[in-house]
Amino acid sequence: MTGSPAPLRSAEIIAVGSELLGSKRVDTNSLFLADELASLGISLRAKAVVGDRRSDLATVFRQALERADLVILTGGLGPTDDDLTRDVVSEVLGLPLEEDPAIVADIEARFAKRGLRMPAINRRQAMVPRGATVLDNPNGSAPGLLVNVGERVVVLLPGPPREMKPMFERVAASVLSPRAGRERFYRVSILVAGRSESHVEEAIQPIYAPLATAVPPIETTILAAPGQIEVHLTALSGDAELAHRSLASARDRIVTAIGDDAFSADGRSMEDIVGGLLRDAGSTIAVAESCSGGLLLSRLTDIPGSSAYVRGGVVAYSNDVKTAFADVPAALIAEHGAVSEPVATAMAEGIRQRMDATVGVGVTGIAGPGGGTPTKPVGTVAIAVAAPSGTTVRTVRFNGSRAQIKHYASQSALDMVRRTIARDAAVRRG
Amino acid sequence: MTGSPAPLRSAEIIAVGSELLGSKRVDTNSLFLADELASLGISLRAKAVVGDRRSDLATVFRQALERADLVILTGGLGPTDDDLTRDVVSEVLGLPLEEDPAIVADIEARFAKRGLRMPAINRRQAMVPRGATVLDNPNGSAPGLLVNVGERVVVLLPGPPREMKPMFERVAASVLSPRAGRERFYRVSILVAGRSESHVEEAIQPIYAPLATAVPPIETTILAAPGQIEVHLTALSGDAELAHRSLASARDRIVTAIGDDAFSADGRSMEDIVGGLLRDAGSTIAVAESCSGGLLLSRLTDIPGSSAYVRGGVVAYSNDVKTAFADVPAALIAEHGAVSEPVATAMAEGIRQRMDATVGVGVTGIAGPGGGTPTKPVGTVAIAVAAPSGTTVRTVRFNGSRAQIKHYASQSALDMVRRTIARDAAVRRG
Repeated sequence: MTGSPAPLRSAEIIAVGSELLGSKRVDTNSLFLADELASLGISLRAKAVVGDRRSDLATVFRQALERADLVILTGGLGPTDDDLTRDVVSEVLGLPLEEDPAIVADIEARFAKRGLRMPAINRRQAMVPRGATVLDNPNGSAPGLLVNVGERVVVLLPGPPREMKPMFERVAASVLSPRAGRERFYRVSILVAGRSESHVEEAIQPIYAPLATAVPPIETTILAAPGQIEVHLTALSGDAELAHRSLASARDRIVTAIGDDAFSADGRSMEDIVGGLLRDAGSTIAVAESCSGGLLLSRLTDIPGSSAYVRGGVVAYSNDVKTAFADVPAALIAEHGAVSEPVATAMAEGIRQRMDATVGVGVTGIAGPGGGTPTKPVGTVAIAVAAPSGTTVRTVRFNGSRAQIKHYASQSALDMVRRTIARDAAVRRG
Repeated sequence: MTGSPAPLRSAEIIAVGSELLGSKRVDTNSLFLADELASLGISLRAKAVVGDRRSDLATVFRQALERADLVILTGGLGPTDDDLTRDVVSEVLGLPLEEDPAIVADIEARFAKRGLRMPAINRRQAMVPRGATVLDNPNGSAPGLLVNVGERVVVLLPGPPREMKPMFERVAASVLSPRAGRERFYRVSILVAGRSESHVEEAIQPIYAPLATAVPPIETTILAAPGQIEVHLTALSGDAELAHRSLASARDRIVTAIGDDAFSADGRSMEDIVGGLLRDAGSTIAVAESCSGGLLLSRLTDIPGSSAYVRGGVVAYSNDVKTAFADVPAALIAEHGAVSEPVATAMAEGIRQRMDATVGVGVTGIAGPGGGTPTKPVGTVAIAVAAPSGTTVRTVRFNGSRAQIKHYASQSALDMVRRTIARDAAVRRG
């Protein structure tokens, strides 16, 4: 008598690799997997990191298998001696490893494409526990594996995120989703710039507090991230339509309470939002940046299709480059200093004109750790945005490391561009 | 008969809190603890994250206690119902909780200082498993706890890093260090560009294999990271001088075996190494980049002091910007296409001249996801480096997302700059 198997309700994740037990690396695969599991309505109960040590991995895996319906292991599928995941899973489950000739052929072909022969050690990656399903890996040599253990499911995924993610997405769609229960987690996020965490909390507490006991109950999390505050709303429900409607209504009330500072209500990043505004307005953008050192341009060009509205830009680390490439008068720099509102304004207006863009941005500041003065300490940044309606300029003082100051400067500049385009569009509509 | 207890050799860390099982937050306390444990010579064998669920925490704790000499729990010491760590530890160890009047008085005093009375729920934080040592918390209301379980040690620490870190440092100095063995961990890292993981493994296997059984034994880990392969060597030894000498000798032999592809022997990043070479040579650099969109400039300017050698650069997303800002002849683009070796060469030479730099870099390619053609698919990137000794150009084809292709392109360009400067320096020395 075989009915349909019980739904998968709980999961544990085991990340394998001694490097993940050091002080330099963090397992980020489990963040992606946590999201994916939530969307399947599978509750993540615990996660573990284990080094490349056979006995440790064996006991951690055995114990996870006792507790969870689904055990996901990431990493340790490489070709070298310290890649133990296949061996340990085979041993704990009592399923002998057998070489799969199709995998050998695949790996040989991958190397041949690059004009290389397959090193002998890569044969290890073709070993498969008896009865396991092989999961193709178009982005690397290590195939994944899926093993049914009674009603439980064990999935082995490669460690590199670009190999792990698409592989898990395929397994989720084909195997896990049909075995998940009716309830799913649903989520919306609101991103806020220009307010502190406690000011966001204060503004929206009267809205979110009653949601915790609504039907379906909505859980609210407020997190401070670099340059933005994030509000996450999560509902667990068996009724997708009801969940979407409740979340949309809560989101809209929160966005209204926060006003212009809420820049994203669908999880899109600041650079993505700014890109969308530029595209919708048929506008283009050009950047002259000093202390942010190319990061602002790099964030703008991270968005697919950005070549439609990014004209380009100049990273002007030296004063003569500011003059030669963004038409900043040398006398202006001499009079006010390179880090000043007049120079930021000249950079924004100069690059806008030179690159024939709708919007020009100028960023000049002191990213540190050296270069600060008593009147202009490290973290002082002047930002200007030049648009058809005129130029806006402001000076901000950020705290943090060099990398953080670069990030905050780029985030503030993007936020000023966002507010400028929105204001100009409102003026045109008005 | 009581001798001195056995040294603490192995540790596990358990982070408690449902928020650490979501997709937005990562347990970073364990990175700090990993470093501290390594400096004590205590081997971190595994770490776990568990939600606020009594039975899950109990089994994970019980299992850690079976494997490790030292179990550190962080979080779950707050005053609310979902703060379970104290209760679960007391239950698993069979040590009843008793209220400690001194802690109650302490917490009352903390609240009184802010003109508040202690909420009743905070009494929970004064419950102590019988026989446990209380660890003062000058930065918060939750005291830590230390329990000796036979020769094993269990430490409970609060979750907030500013409370956890100083508390652990005091416990390490007073209790753990005297119980740690004489041996400590030492480490060196070698970073490699331009070779696959298996080809690095093949080249150095004869060197590292015997190290595993040398005195002191050296453990080797080979990792593939985006755009580079990392070789980490770790020694556990009671003799610091011997460990440093053995690691230095192993590192030197591995660097010799890998040759020019080994770009860093001290853990410094590619942009840091390139910056050092430029600075040492008294050289400057300028960049004209298209598909990498500012990322190459941003990586160069991530290094403190880079304003000494980064002249600046241009992000030329459109053809007319390439012509106007890097003197690329429009006819050359028309003839060969924007993504071509002649255009990359003209960008490198043009920006070098225009910005009066020692080294010029040109990067042009297709980052995707759109824009590919059958002859120039997404991921095709032409990179040129112009130096006093002449210009080098190559075309590479990368796989991956837009962000990955940007990263690989910037990494390859930096690596070409590195090899060019090293070669030119060798010519001058020769």
